[in-house]
Amino acid sequence: MQSPSHTLGEFALIERFFKTRSETMLASTKSIVILGIGDDCALLVPKPNEELAITSDMLVEGRHFFAGAKAQWLGHKALAVNLSDLAAMGAKPIGFTLALALPTADPRWLEAFSNGLFALANTYSCPLIGGDTTAGPLNICITAFGALPMGKAIRRSGAMAGDDIWVSGTVGDARLALAALRHEINLPPTDLELIENRLHQPVPRVELGIAIRGIATAALDISDGLLGDLKHLLESSHKDAEVFVDRIPKSVILQKMKVPLQTQFAACGGDDYELCFTAPSSQRIAINNIGQALKLSLTQIGSIKPMQNNLATISLMTSDGQDLDANTTAALLKSFDHFA
Amino acid sequence: MQSPSHTLGEFALIERFFKTRSETMLASTKSIVILGIGDDCALLVPKPNEELAITSDMLVEGRHFFAGAKAQWLGHKALAVNLSDLAAMGAKPIGFTLALALPTADPRWLEAFSNGLFALANTYSCPLIGGDTTAGPLNICITAFGALPMGKAIRRSGAMAGDDIWVSGTVGDARLALAALRHEINLPPTDLELIENRLHQPVPRVELGIAIRGIATAALDISDGLLGDLKHLLESSHKDAEVFVDRIPKSVILQKMKVPLQTQFAACGGDDYELCFTAPSSQRIAINNIGQALKLSLTQIGSIKPMQNNLATISLMTSDGQDLDANTTAALLKSFDHFA
Repeated sequence: MQSPSHTLGEFALIERFFKTRSETMLASTKSIVILGIGDDCALLVPKPNEELAITSDMLVEGRHFFAGAKAQWLGHKALAVNLSDLAAMGAKPIGFTLALALPTADPRWLEAFSNGLFALANTYSCPLIGGDTTAGPLNICITAFGALPMGKAIRRSGAMAGDDIWVSGTVGDARLALAALRHEINLPPTDLELIENRLHQPVPRVELGIAIRGIATAALDISDGLLGDLKHLLESSHKDAEVFVDRIPKSVILQKMKVPLQTQFAACGGDDYELCFTAPSSQRIAINNIGQALKLSLTQIGSIKPMQNNLATISLMTSDGQDLDANTTAALLKSFDHFA
Repeated sequence: MQSPSHTLGEFALIERFFKTRSETMLASTKSIVILGIGDDCALLVPKPNEELAITSDMLVEGRHFFAGAKAQWLGHKALAVNLSDLAAMGAKPIGFTLALALPTADPRWLEAFSNGLFALANTYSCPLIGGDTTAGPLNICITAFGALPMGKAIRRSGAMAGDDIWVSGTVGDARLALAALRHEINLPPTDLELIENRLHQPVPRVELGIAIRGIATAALDISDGLLGDLKHLLESSHKDAEVFVDRIPKSVILQKMKVPLQTQFAACGGDDYELCFTAPSSQRIAINNIGQALKLSLTQIGSIKPMQNNLATISLMTSDGQDLDANTTAALLKSFDHFA
């Protein structure tokens, strides 16, 4: 735990790859962050009449990414999954902390990692404001902060019976990429590259989350799989839902697969980081307009029902009104579990 | 990364050991936290005219604690080191997030860990407000939040030439405990128990940090070793310092050791989590009064000097004004480095 002198040690590494870039960002963006890296704490001065949204996600090698994954992708993804949680509340990113355990202090790895990290951070003017670096098995823990007008957070608990259920973009590609990387399926190289990008460089739906404030009644991001995450929303809202399985939006590449695999990956595949949200049917035009403005497809996949038996049940059916058989339904309702 | 059904899975574990206790704390404390565990983000409503202090620390097995360390101690220490950072800014704890990677989901380990964690959290009415649990090599990452009256944060950068340098409590015991646990030295069982407690269950100096707001010109907590940390303070403040080595406060147990070892452990041992702060000499009576009120010894160990050569130099001497020899000085000035 204590150890003697060093060559390129912790302080030099932090300075070289994180502190300087963080200072550049803080200097160039108008920020509520008044003190960044280099003291015992960072300091924020929250704006009056704003709430602060806070989320923390930990990425572990072998669990959330393959050993040897490109450091640049990891830098992007570690921040993206946190910004996705901010987006799901409708919050505007304002900053993040990074705690990083590394087996070795490899400057090339750190440079690539920080390139991926800061490219995304710059996109959202979301500065790194503090953190910790230590030796250990590779582990990336980011805590991100967002601002919201008072009372405007989109919680999971606000869905009302009769609301539409919406999904942004397409779902299932990250799961398809995983299957391809595990050699469970074969894909042409161009398709593989496109869907690998979806797995490794997800786009957090920050603009969408902000745009649907005051329109959506509930929202969450799809990290564990559409149906599993929707079930969390239903549990929080004490509602049931009806989902038209063939309406779940899939990419052109996923649509080339056999239909049962399409359905399984789109309905249950994790790591998509799209938003699932609910809104009254009176908001359909407003939501379509938001989709057009953001150049992002928004698809109504079902609707919220009153809760029948305290189980947050999802009834799966086809668009022509047929129920799916019980086995298919049961198989689809399984969610992603990090300790399974 | 995706995985099938589970027995006692992630959600059940979080619910059982963290969410319920967190909710109990939030319900029983008057808090600015309006939404805790269970949504995409936690939500805080900062008070007007308050700043928010944020700190993040990651604890890794084999680096910050021994494999097989008592889970209850780990729960305490993971939060304590973060509260210590808040204390060093003068901030009052308001909440924290926990991200936890665990090799196995052992309910006994989790119960002991959460016992240690919540015992300390309750002491400071600092609720768990969110986080993440995943499988992976044991890693504990806590991000803690504190509140400060606007402009009252005690930064590292405010030390002035002529200021006294103060240290709370005693330093070196955690390093002594480490030496004993590594069988480098032998200690009687009662002494070992006392100093092991100092290593495993450090007391964050939260009340002291709050009390010295407006009195201290600069502060930090001693995590890497007194002299190494003081050097960080000097670098931030662009000052030099003079430290009387024989004034550095040591416990009765450490004072039983040979003098060179006493000096080395007290001056350079890490993991103490005492505060080192600077204040004008006009504040000596006020500081002594604070120490008496908190029943915490506060010792003036030296003073701040104008910077001579841009190196944030610490001159080590004895109380009778003798300089320490260069070799002793060089050996003492080495700081703790996680990547050494």
